[in-house]
Amino acid sequence: MYSHCVTGGWILGNTIDGTQAQYVRIPHADTSLYRIPQGVDEDALVMLSDVLPTAFECGVLNGKIETPGISVAIIGAGPIGLATLLTARFFSPGTIIMIDRDDNRLQIAKRLGADVVINNASHDPIEEVKRLTGGVGVDAVIEAVGTPEAFELCEELVAPGGRIANVGVHGKKVDLHLEKLWSQNITITTRLVDTVTTHILLKAVQAKKVDPNSLISHHFTFDRILDAYDTFGRAADTGALKVIISMTD
Amino acid sequence: MYSHCVTGGWILGNTIDGTQAQYVRIPHADTSLYRIPQGVDEDALVMLSDVLPTAFECGVLNGKIETPGISVAIIGAGPIGLATLLTARFFSPGTIIMIDRDDNRLQIAKRLGADVVINNASHDPIEEVKRLTGGVGVDAVIEAVGTPEAFELCEELVAPGGRIANVGVHGKKVDLHLEKLWSQNITITTRLVDTVTTHILLKAVQAKKVDPNSLISHHFTFDRILDAYDTFGRAADTGALKVIISMTD
Amino acid sequence: MYSHCVTGGWILGNTIDGTQAQYVRIPHADTSLYRIPQGVDEDALVMLSDVLPTAFECGVLNGKIETPGISVAIIGAGPIGLATLLTARFFSPGTIIMIDRDDNRLQIAKRLGADVVINNASHDPIEEVKRLTGGVGVDAVIEAVGTPEAFELCEELVAPGGRIANVGVHGKKVDLHLEKLWSQNITITTRLVDTVTTHILLKAVQAKKVDPNSLISHHFTFDRILDAYDTFGRAADTGALKVIISMTD
Amino acid sequence: MYSHCVTGGWILGNTIDGTQAQYVRIPHADTSLYRIPQGVDEDALVMLSDVLPTAFECGVLNGKIETPGISVAIIGAGPIGLATLLTARFFSPGTIIMIDRDDNRLQIAKRLGADVVINNASHDPIEEVKRLTGGVGVDAVIEAVGTPEAFELCEELVAPGGRIANVGVHGKKVDLHLEKLWSQNITITTRLVDTVTTHILLKAVQAKKVDPNSLISHHFTFDRILDAYDTFGRAADTGALKVIISMTD
Repeated sequence: MYSHCVTGGWILGNTIDGTQAQYVRIPHADTSLYRIPQGVDEDALVMLSDVLPTAFECGVLNGKIETPGISVAIIGAGPIGLATLLTARFFSPGTIIMIDRDDNRLQIAKRLGADVVINNASHDPIEEVKRLTGGVGVDAVIEAVGTPEAFELCEELVAPGGRIANVGVHGKKVDLHLEKLWSQNITITTRLVDTVTTHILLKAVQAKKVDPNSLISHHFTFDRILDAYDTFGRAADTGALKVIISMTD
Repeated sequence: MYSHCVTGGWILGNTIDGTQAQYVRIPHADTSLYRIPQGVDEDALVMLSDVLPTAFECGVLNGKIETPGISVAIIGAGPIGLATLLTARFFSPGTIIMIDRDDNRLQIAKRLGADVVINNASHDPIEEVKRLTGGVGVDAVIEAVGTPEAFELCEELVAPGGRIANVGVHGKKVDLHLEKLWSQNITITTRLVDTVTTHILLKAVQAKKVDPNSLISHHFTFDRILDAYDTFGRAADTGALKVIISMTD
Repeated sequence: MYSHCVTGGWILGNTIDGTQAQYVRIPHADTSLYRIPQGVDEDALVMLSDVLPTAFECGVLNGKIETPGISVAIIGAGPIGLATLLTARFFSPGTIIMIDRDDNRLQIAKRLGADVVINNASHDPIEEVKRLTGGVGVDAVIEAVGTPEAFELCEELVAPGGRIANVGVHGKKVDLHLEKLWSQNITITTRLVDTVTTHILLKAVQAKKVDPNSLISHHFTFDRILDAYDTFGRAADTGALKVIISMTD
Repeated sequence: MYSHCVTGGWILGNTIDGTQAQYVRIPHADTSLYRIPQGVDEDALVMLSDVLPTAFECGVLNGKIETPGISVAIIGAGPIGLATLLTARFFSPGTIIMIDRDDNRLQIAKRLGADVVINNASHDPIEEVKRLTGGVGVDAVIEAVGTPEAFELCEELVAPGGRIANVGVHGKKVDLHLEKLWSQNITITTRLVDTVTTHILLKAVQAKKVDPNSLISHHFTFDRILDAYDTFGRAADTGALKVIISMTD
């Protein structure tokens, strides 16, 4: 469980500054660098540094969605929610439902393979999900927002025997309705990504089983790095998902 | 998952009245009755109807304590907590810590194999557990009380990568501190017993790997059934754990 | 494990005669019948009685091919091998290799999604597989023939840490080369289908995640049942996979 | 899977000479050395370098004996078979049967917790095991000899749904009776130890859940190293299990 190493673990962008420079020193590189396979698009591999393993490990693997035909809901259609959708499609759930308040993002979700999208600004997601699942809720629900409202929605949507896999970064406590859930045989998981699936994702990218480029909305050269941050910071307006900053054109 | 059968599931003592009679009709008996093996104490088998499978399935199996040498805390030393202790000892955790407010029950826990007991009326259980585990908390913590305080104590005691297995029946929501736990790689489970391990427990009793009789504190004959209820109702005074009511002496 | 029930288990076509009649008595029907969902093609559901669950349980689940990007070889491209291919595609292996001596069947395999096909009448499958896998062999190899030669080929193809999942019905002992395999961390499984995944396959068919009809090569009406047997018996000539016999046109 | 590292893996005593010297260079020491905990007997820890992790990983974990009450047979009561017995007792199998041709070793097995011992020089182990298990065989059988006879005995003893976990080092192929086993839902595993459980065994030794010293029959000082080899080489006469060679008295 690399995420909880006493020395090492999550360092870059957390305990020391990041890597936006021409040369960087990477602590513990001997156990955390991967050789880039020939012929693989390098932009795609940038997605393997964080967003794809986080989505796959914390969302998809913890959500246990490998059983064919099950129902899955993903709360939040931002980059991490969409990456969860992409890696969920390694398996064959019967229905993948994406829930978000932004129609733009839901349209992208639809294009990336969501079976159903629900805008919870305009529709009641509980009612819609219950209707889609014969009243029982979904087998796996993945929280990719990081708010009490989103987590508590998961509690409403999960079927007996189901899983709530938390991916979102939370800043506040949430209400856990054990008065209802104590008897529902559910599992709730939290996880900081361990990046133990990087070699799996590398193989899957090589075999064209997932296309990480679909998460990239913008490209910038290094001299326009501030524009990149601005574009990413106003994602609702710019439609930014992930942005690539290159040293050269 | 029998506990969530649409017809069947938890019936006796829940949706229809119980079985304190000479003859009873048992719905779905064709899939829920077991032959009593020769030479097995019948009192012991009464413990296999609910308290032992509940403790084993909801507490021990969900808590995943089969890895030798790990640390386990059980909150609550009532009959269900003690049954959790008994079935935890099928495996070889390094330390089993029992936490309760009743010294009597903690003494019984000690006798049944707890390595450490903590009275949380008089001691700070967080401080004690941190001291016992080098500051990291326990690998598995089992809630066998059913109150917000007990569950929230579990959140404080669980180590990164650990499990909280809920056994208690809850009547109120609890605070889930995701602002701390989102990154701690923990798993929380709830479960209504499925009694899918009854055949395992029967074999374990036959092989003398567990002694369910240690949960029985009192015996009554059928004509003294009201005394039995009274004794069980005043458990703090009478020291009652489980009481057996027999048709004959 | 229904396949090894002391009463029940594999009855039809094994311990009692089959069901080619207008009315049949089905022993243990209370635990082995499924309601046909509305709108599902009934021919497809015939494939769910045996060939698909056998392929999925004995081949795909025992072969543990759910990790994305891994390599899989299936020995034998008859109906059961093709059904293994179909259900393997619930997951995202990087490469699925089909091996058979019949070019016709390999062409069907190709159409049903095999990444590579090898005719082992004309090519050395060991050399080809080693070339495709950087010399290490495949992560999972599924025996769907039932001969010593086919099983011993599996032993040659499996990578360190890999699985050999036997599906074939064997009439002779095979040589197990433990002098090589003792140190290779492999797993070999055998299994008579338990049909515990029928409900999963039903959902997957409803969600159009698998098309069982692709296994059906011929249709006959009941009055031409002998032609059906003849066609199936000369599969090499007729190209028969599975044949459907209907009461009516 | 360290055992199959392309660089590294099993080096000492395999691809380079061993460590019977005052100073040694250990390749890949940064990922394979453990700090000795205070207060732990050092002789016991020598058993953690190979015999205990091999027995635990290849025999006990692969044999999946954690379900309480199951039946287990161990073929071979040499040091590795006895280490399998010791680590099997982390769990609570209902019956552990040891089979060997040496009464001395079987007596030690009895003392270390075997429930039943069978001398297969004088008794038919198949008949005895069938008698003990109601005719069905054992749930897990562990091969700790390394001969075709021992492995083929495992095939006779395993129950439907059971596991054969190979620990022995084999020099010859064996007969695998697939004509019988294809339908028996069994699992056969092989494994070169990965020493991924060393930290678990260290904790278990500290918690006194296993006593590795019981595997040590003799002690020698470094100047008597040839006597040590001689004693170990004539184990049948000397009763040697594991011998400790110390630098000082």
